[in-house]
Amino acid sequence: MNERQIIKTIAALGASCDDRVLKGIGDDCAVIKNGEGRVWLLTMDTLIESVHFDCGFHPPELLGRKAVSVNVSDVCAMGGRALFALLSLGLPRSFSSDWLLAFLRGMREACADYGCCLIGGDTVASPGGSNFSLTLIGEAEQGQVVYRSTAFVGDTIWVSGQLGFAAAGLALLSKGIGAGEKNFESFRNKHLNPRAQSQLGPALAASGLVHAMMDLSDGLSTDLAHICEQSLVGAELLADSLPGQDTLAFAADLLAVDPLDWILNGGEDYELLFTAAPEHDNALLHIAKQCGQDIFPIGQIVPGGEINLIRNLAGKKPQRQCIGNQGFDHFRNRSA
Amino acid sequence: MNERQIIKTIAALGASCDDRVLKGIGDDCAVIKNGEGRVWLLTMDTLIESVHFDCGFHPPELLGRKAVSVNVSDVCAMGGRALFALLSLGLPRSFSSDWLLAFLRGMREACADYGCCLIGGDTVASPGGSNFSLTLIGEAEQGQVVYRSTAFVGDTIWVSGQLGFAAAGLALLSKGIGAGEKNFESFRNKHLNPRAQSQLGPALAASGLVHAMMDLSDGLSTDLAHICEQSLVGAELLADSLPGQDTLAFAADLLAVDPLDWILNGGEDYELLFTAAPEHDNALLHIAKQCGQDIFPIGQIVPGGEINLIRNLAGKKPQRQCIGNQGFDHFRNRSA
Repeated sequence: MNERQIIKTIAALGASCDDRVLKGIGDDCAVIKNGEGRVWLLTMDTLIESVHFDCGFHPPELLGRKAVSVNVSDVCAMGGRALFALLSLGLPRSFSSDWLLAFLRGMREACADYGCCLIGGDTVASPGGSNFSLTLIGEAEQGQVVYRSTAFVGDTIWVSGQLGFAAAGLALLSKGIGAGEKNFESFRNKHLNPRAQSQLGPALAASGLVHAMMDLSDGLSTDLAHICEQSLVGAELLADSLPGQDTLAFAADLLAVDPLDWILNGGEDYELLFTAAPEHDNALLHIAKQCGQDIFPIGQIVPGGEINLIRNLAGKKPQRQCIGNQGFDHFRNRSA
Repeated sequence: MNERQIIKTIAALGASCDDRVLKGIGDDCAVIKNGEGRVWLLTMDTLIESVHFDCGFHPPELLGRKAVSVNVSDVCAMGGRALFALLSLGLPRSFSSDWLLAFLRGMREACADYGCCLIGGDTVASPGGSNFSLTLIGEAEQGQVVYRSTAFVGDTIWVSGQLGFAAAGLALLSKGIGAGEKNFESFRNKHLNPRAQSQLGPALAASGLVHAMMDLSDGLSTDLAHICEQSLVGAELLADSLPGQDTLAFAADLLAVDPLDWILNGGEDYELLFTAAPEHDNALLHIAKQCGQDIFPIGQIVPGGEINLIRNLAGKKPQRQCIGNQGFDHFRNRSA
């Protein structure tokens, strides 16, 4: 079983037992009715040492911030705002008090930035290294929640921000490549201290113009596949329009990586991926500008279920390449 | 820093940012107003391989049940009923699909028993062994929620069920002691498959007779210290009245353990610890009987802050022994 199969198995078990559950497993958050046209959004993300972070180069303060941001990102990607957090803190017995205090300071600052607060949790010994599970509860207007399952054929596909930077940053940090080109610091920052789109997500949802939305955590190829599977549609991405390629070129050359691989499959972008009818292109650009955020059209929703990347090669006819689900999977290539 | 110091540090950071938070860190659950006189109860408990469970003797189906029960226990100990669960599932890459399916089956069955359902979560690779964080959301009438901080001097101290059985069961299982006295199976079951007091907790809360209540997870000495600290009172326990000593005697002899140590400090009882004015003793016994549950008076709330155990020794005057906070602490005896 790989990660997708595990989640499908769990989703099949998790039958709804309460008519307040508008959405259970399968989106960025669970959605629960909360009376008077409002809903709670609930999400849970875990960071595990040596899988999601390396204490060798991840400052504890930024790790505390990241534990909050990756969860807030899920709430914002459904159009909500973050309210309450619960933390399960797993620490090796040898943890340093200074390290923990810096981690908690980062968490507190990130909570303050996003307007949420820590209300509970659990503290346990973790012999295999540190791990942090955060549960975040957000809220939204019921009518404004944006799901993964409502993309329509003909929609423009958009992303906020440039892609692949976190993957490049992680690659540089893992190889100990410190100083360098001026872009390197923004790549490293994107891995160490990603920011949730806490203004843009709710603004797009409130506009009523967006059909489907989610945050990019596992990589564009995998995350777009979630939208396509749940919306029963396919997608065509234009390679030339994927943002980030030029900026990534030098680092990609240095590490002998195709920058498109970082962009499509790198993961941890924590940008928004969303679709909307093409007549709203200008309105969306205007909303993004008001939030101080660049957004980029990267392709179109099409009939069928395939996701194809269209590459223009000099002097040749455009090449179609089927992609999809090539992003991060914790349990890829397991034998059983 | 030990576990209590870590939790105090986190609680100091977690300033409330929303007037819907009736209780943040420091009780069995966080309590959030949910309109119309009702509240949500939120709790999060983590089980880590080789700390909380041993896959060598813990059947996966019972482990799945236990992950649910220990969280439901927190909700019931505040007088609520369980509604929704989120699961963060950390698995080594080498996990067996059969093991996982049995674990999830146990979770589903326990959720069905308690009337709650799985609505979300996260799946990650965990190189240091399996770990499971469950977040549980319950609900209650706002006026019926029972906190730790409201015990009064003169209250009778009660526990549901017999104590120390889970600690005895874990000791037997760890030493590979299988067949034996007929009680051994109930000890092992108490560790492998504890049950939350999902009838008694809400019934006691609804009666309006109970002053303070919590569930016994870290051991009577530590958990009663939480009630005393938060209620600014002390307690006297009568050793002769602590339930379980006779039943535990044979196993304790076999393993050369003082059964009182299992009862006071063993942890994982998942019974209710509660206090109420002594004039309600009979009414409480009646409520418990209706729930098919034995409850036992074990002492009294007194002024001051100490917790003393009164032991009657043959031919001597009663011995007072100061106890408190001697139960399970993940980070006891750390140097820093």
